[in-house]
Amino acid sequence: MTTDFQAWSHENVQRVESVLQRVLPGTDIAPARLHEAMRYAVLGGGKRARPLLAFAAGELAGADPGRVEIGAAAVELIHAYSLVHDDLPCMDDDVLRRGKPTCHVEYDEATALLVGDALQSLAFQLLGDYRLADDARVQLEMVKLLAAAAGSRGMAGGQQIDLESTGKTLTVPELEFMHIHKTGALIRAAALIGARCGSLGERELSQVDHFAKLIGLAFQVVDDVLDAESPTATLGKTAGKDAMNNKPTYVSAMGASRAREFAQQLRERALGALKAFGARALRLQQLADFIVLRKF
Amino acid sequence: MTTDFQAWSHENVQRVESVLQRVLPGTDIAPARLHEAMRYAVLGGGKRARPLLAFAAGELAGADPGRVEIGAAAVELIHAYSLVHDDLPCMDDDVLRRGKPTCHVEYDEATALLVGDALQSLAFQLLGDYRLADDARVQLEMVKLLAAAAGSRGMAGGQQIDLESTGKTLTVPELEFMHIHKTGALIRAAALIGARCGSLGERELSQVDHFAKLIGLAFQVVDDVLDAESPTATLGKTAGKDAMNNKPTYVSAMGASRAREFAQQLRERALGALKAFGARALRLQQLADFIVLRKF
Repeated sequence: MTTDFQAWSHENVQRVESVLQRVLPGTDIAPARLHEAMRYAVLGGGKRARPLLAFAAGELAGADPGRVEIGAAAVELIHAYSLVHDDLPCMDDDVLRRGKPTCHVEYDEATALLVGDALQSLAFQLLGDYRLADDARVQLEMVKLLAAAAGSRGMAGGQQIDLESTGKTLTVPELEFMHIHKTGALIRAAALIGARCGSLGERELSQVDHFAKLIGLAFQVVDDVLDAESPTATLGKTAGKDAMNNKPTYVSAMGASRAREFAQQLRERALGALKAFGARALRLQQLADFIVLRKF
Repeated sequence: MTTDFQAWSHENVQRVESVLQRVLPGTDIAPARLHEAMRYAVLGGGKRARPLLAFAAGELAGADPGRVEIGAAAVELIHAYSLVHDDLPCMDDDVLRRGKPTCHVEYDEATALLVGDALQSLAFQLLGDYRLADDARVQLEMVKLLAAAAGSRGMAGGQQIDLESTGKTLTVPELEFMHIHKTGALIRAAALIGARCGSLGERELSQVDHFAKLIGLAFQVVDDVLDAESPTATLGKTAGKDAMNNKPTYVSAMGASRAREFAQQLRERALGALKAFGARALRLQQLADFIVLRKF
């Protein structure tokens, strides 16, 4: 990882943090407990991988970062809501997230439910409230994109498939189908929303989409390997949880060593999808490395 | 109630039912169980009061009903999601809704959680996907409006205030603050989205908003009276639930008889807000009567 990428990444994480700080209602506004819990669930944690992807795709498309940061924050709010709901007792029933007690442990279940619900609303409020594209029709396209990625044929659908897969042995194509929904859809939306803040043709957009699809899958494969091999303290969330919960993963389907190889292959195919862009795709390339080579 | 209004209302309920039928993913699409549960939670039940309000405000604004029906469906999806989440064990823990087992009873808690999440996404997907206004910027305004109405300073915030009020005695202004969030925000959004599908000036829009605010409150007061006085079979949901759950209501705050009078006063003030529109406001006037005089 070059120092240059670290600086870029640090700068853009700060950018999205500052938007999130600003758009999340303050704890002086009623209902205070809900707003406090929303801030707890979103701020000061997480790799912000989806926002970084939006910024990198935005750079490729020559977008104004002041616009991309709103789209990036909207995607991160959807991601944050999904974590709060996934951790609930009726789902994964987890107590640790980003090194802190999960939202329903720190507050209570009902509040955590509402935190997730309200974070989803806030994501769409941002897309309606700020200007992200010269043409408002392009911005409506972003609303549609994010909603489809979050919904029953995207992330929420992936969660349902995940629920139904617990205790089952999945084939690699079945695992892929699950992850394309569960994590892939939102990762693709992050890249496409970033890109749509600038100007790219339909063919170029579909190359960015293809890159994001592959790197999203790689992200999941790496996640599975890390879950199986890292200690909880490093991970910031309960480690070994997949095996404990009897969840099918790439590690259970192909073993850790082949899963690591598979992640590398996906990274190479993802980088291949960027070829036509040349040096303009630098940040996306670096991000691909960051995602596949990360340790937590 | 005139036959004429019944026919108008029947026609528009059919309209929104048919949109909901069409936009909810079929049970042939994976994940099938989630899509089946989403359809279970939304279709074939409910008074569709919010959609009717959108249609009535749309008529006042000279809007194309083919556009209003999409906005009406989006608002109803938000309403339906909120009912599914409100009925969950960690919230009101209810087993009966619209005369049928609640979603988590018919399916399971995790599925019901995802049903609500995915219905919220679908609402925004509709607003991004269809054309509801000539000017796309007006449509972005609708996205913002619906998101704000659903979020922590609207409906979800109202739920939180409701949670925190259980077992407490609230004053009438405190009750009003709760209901303006919990049910009022979405009712106002329904009227404003309907109106924005047509053309009204800012001053006229604010009159529609004022009407909707008053009628939304009247709706809640009537709900409280009906909850206290109707048998479960008529109500289609568990009756007497508020008192059982020790929830503050207009009946507990002022008694049933004064609550009924208060609903009538709100209705009259609401009708007053429509005066400047003359006969163009016919459907909104009839709807006000329908809401205040309803028996279930």
